[in-house]
Amino acid sequence: MWNVSVKETSYDHRLARARVRCVGPDGTALADQSVSVAQVNHDFLFGNIGFDFMDWAIGRDTSEATARLLDDYLGLYNATTLPFYLGRYEPVRDQPDAERLMATARLFQDAGHVVKGHPLVWHTITAPWMNALPLDEVEAGLRARIRRDVAGFAGVIDMWDAINEVVIMPVFTAEDNTVTKLAWAKGRVEMVRMAVEEARAANKEAYLLLNDFDLSSAYECLIEACLEGGVQLDAIGLQTHMHQGFRGEEELLDRIEKFSRYGLPLHFTESSLVSGHLMPPEIVDLNDYVIPEWPSTPDGEERQADEMVRLYTTLVSQAPVKAAVYWGISDQGAWLGAPIGLIRADGTPKPSYDALKSLVKGDWWVGPSQGMTDSDGCFELTGWLGTYDVTVAGVTQRVHLDTVEPMTIKISV
Amino acid sequence: MWNVSVKETSYDHRLARARVRCVGPDGTALADQSVSVAQVNHDFLFGNIGFDFMDWAIGRDTSEATARLLDDYLGLYNATTLPFYLGRYEPVRDQPDAERLMATARLFQDAGHVVKGHPLVWHTITAPWMNALPLDEVEAGLRARIRRDVAGFAGVIDMWDAINEVVIMPVFTAEDNTVTKLAWAKGRVEMVRMAVEEARAANKEAYLLLNDFDLSSAYECLIEACLEGGVQLDAIGLQTHMHQGFRGEEELLDRIEKFSRYGLPLHFTESSLVSGHLMPPEIVDLNDYVIPEWPSTPDGEERQADEMVRLYTTLVSQAPVKAAVYWGISDQGAWLGAPIGLIRADGTPKPSYDALKSLVKGDWWVGPSQGMTDSDGCFELTGWLGTYDVTVAGVTQRVHLDTVEPMTIKISV
Repeated sequence: MWNVSVKETSYDHRLARARVRCVGPDGTALADQSVSVAQVNHDFLFGNIGFDFMDWAIGRDTSEATARLLDDYLGLYNATTLPFYLGRYEPVRDQPDAERLMATARLFQDAGHVVKGHPLVWHTITAPWMNALPLDEVEAGLRARIRRDVAGFAGVIDMWDAINEVVIMPVFTAEDNTVTKLAWAKGRVEMVRMAVEEARAANKEAYLLLNDFDLSSAYECLIEACLEGGVQLDAIGLQTHMHQGFRGEEELLDRIEKFSRYGLPLHFTESSLVSGHLMPPEIVDLNDYVIPEWPSTPDGEERQADEMVRLYTTLVSQAPVKAAVYWGISDQGAWLGAPIGLIRADGTPKPSYDALKSLVKGDWWVGPSQGMTDSDGCFELTGWLGTYDVTVAGVTQRVHLDTVEPMTIKISV
Repeated sequence: MWNVSVKETSYDHRLARARVRCVGPDGTALADQSVSVAQVNHDFLFGNIGFDFMDWAIGRDTSEATARLLDDYLGLYNATTLPFYLGRYEPVRDQPDAERLMATARLFQDAGHVVKGHPLVWHTITAPWMNALPLDEVEAGLRARIRRDVAGFAGVIDMWDAINEVVIMPVFTAEDNTVTKLAWAKGRVEMVRMAVEEARAANKEAYLLLNDFDLSSAYECLIEACLEGGVQLDAIGLQTHMHQGFRGEEELLDRIEKFSRYGLPLHFTESSLVSGHLMPPEIVDLNDYVIPEWPSTPDGEERQADEMVRLYTTLVSQAPVKAAVYWGISDQGAWLGAPIGLIRADGTPKPSYDALKSLVKGDWWVGPSQGMTDSDGCFELTGWLGTYDVTVAGVTQRVHLDTVEPMTIKISV
């Protein structure tokens, strides 16, 4: 029997093994027929941030450079994080940047992406108008903002980083802001509860994450606190910016082990790897490292490509990990000016882009492949959990392989 | 009116201001009578560890050196922490060192001390027999141990560090042990709940602490988790071993501010200050610093005395702090071999002993003083919350000043 299979078959927890039976309109087997199979998408979320395409989405940016960057982006990823930082999204009260965000979200939704809004509550990039309010109005304002945006984007954005960096939130000192003051007054769990409950009330389908850069025991304790408090989280978000160097397989596996024991899916929400010199280790807050220029170098790009493969290989090797979101496709406008992109500022791909694509759309991808059904109209399909197009007798059907349990699928044409 | 007052009156939150009215058997004022006042005890717990006196308590140690050390100890402190580390208390199953501990606890109870057991559950100094058990029996064994010891010592020891160092407990790697494995399996909050609920069931009067050396946001999150989980803690224990240098007022005040916002009393449970060279800052686990000799030096002793005053002055200046327990009276047998004692190994007091005593029994202490009642039989007493003996007309009565609210006390002789 023809077996169309993904190249890399060592990740059992990611693999569906389906017997596909093709039948005609009368239910008889389509024996010895030419059949083709092409993977359409991964269930695993390979994401990046779509911040570069917001002006494109509303037609304000029509540059060739952005068009090419978008092609590269859509050619690799299936999930997109979009920015809802209050200080940028709604710098003037009641004048949110909703139209541009909606256009951008639809652009990616139409491309088959899972779109996530980031974040609903955070103590950084806060809005001046909110910082001028008394605490009770801050809370009311945050609640209203959550309801408005989660309801307003429902059906287009159904995944949210509900609240960001709660471990440090009440004791954050780098910027005076009222979100920190509210967190100090209410306590961490009540902040998380506020964000999650408002978001869920506004969109019953919402998939809600807690997200943090602090991957120490503090975050474990915070998660235990939220669970003890009955706050219903859908996934745990783990940031892994690596401007100071790749964390290595051992540390990544250790964190996955520690955070997976709560039984919630893990999303690596913010990863970055530099293709230039590393940030000095003594820097604690990455934002404190400000330099005029941070070039991408040939050696750095080779290292970044190698680390990109090691990072993604490690993450997909662990069943609890359901998403790996990188923090910037391009060096152009990258966070901290760091060369963390997979595309250089001049628009050419770095080795990391090709290396990751050769995994996501190569070793971990099926087809398009041509084969034949057997005398029972069957063939076997071994592929990553995800969606596939099967074409037989001139008709294409889309199937979703959603379980690692052995299955039989019937294709009726 | 005669006003007998503590010397240092700047800590309003520690001071009772009482009008004392002395009356005879028939209820008439004892006017213009000679009266004397002597403080007996502080409500604030000035504690240390009584580990040095366990053999003394059972008559196995009758040395002059221990007798003198005990005099120095009782001359300064009013609270004592005693060791219940399972691996030492019960190295062989069902053969606990209960008699010696009970004798020691009674010795301090008879001296007016609040005696605390430390700790009921911990992942260090575990018992080999327990480490050989399967996890369900570990839990049963811990529960049985808690019930037995808390019930067995009730009335003598009513204060316990219910569980120790829970932040690191489930991810502790320095020693393989089953308490860590149980904490990994159950989760931190359930470990705390187990310890607190068993202890409370065994002694309704038990005053129960959570105790940790990790004073970062991780501990804040753990406390929030326990409170969300409905675990009833009586106080938060904060360790402050300072072998690597005095933490300074700013850090101490910051921690007090952060941990007091849960509305629970704070106990500084384990403080230490070296009177010799400091441990290098790169040491993370203090236990890793092993040197043949760690001498106390004249310069170090002056620094220690100064820091002792700064430490205690800072702690008593903050209302939420209810206890300050030091970790060793003598350099003899001190933890890590560090010269953290207030008494040298040769039995002579260091400047830190005299400095602390001149606060606890000097600036913060009333009398004994002689004065006269006024024509209404009254005088005023301004002193730290605590107990006082008032002697008038040849009769001594003990009074407890237990509130900072202005009060009138009647002494009937």
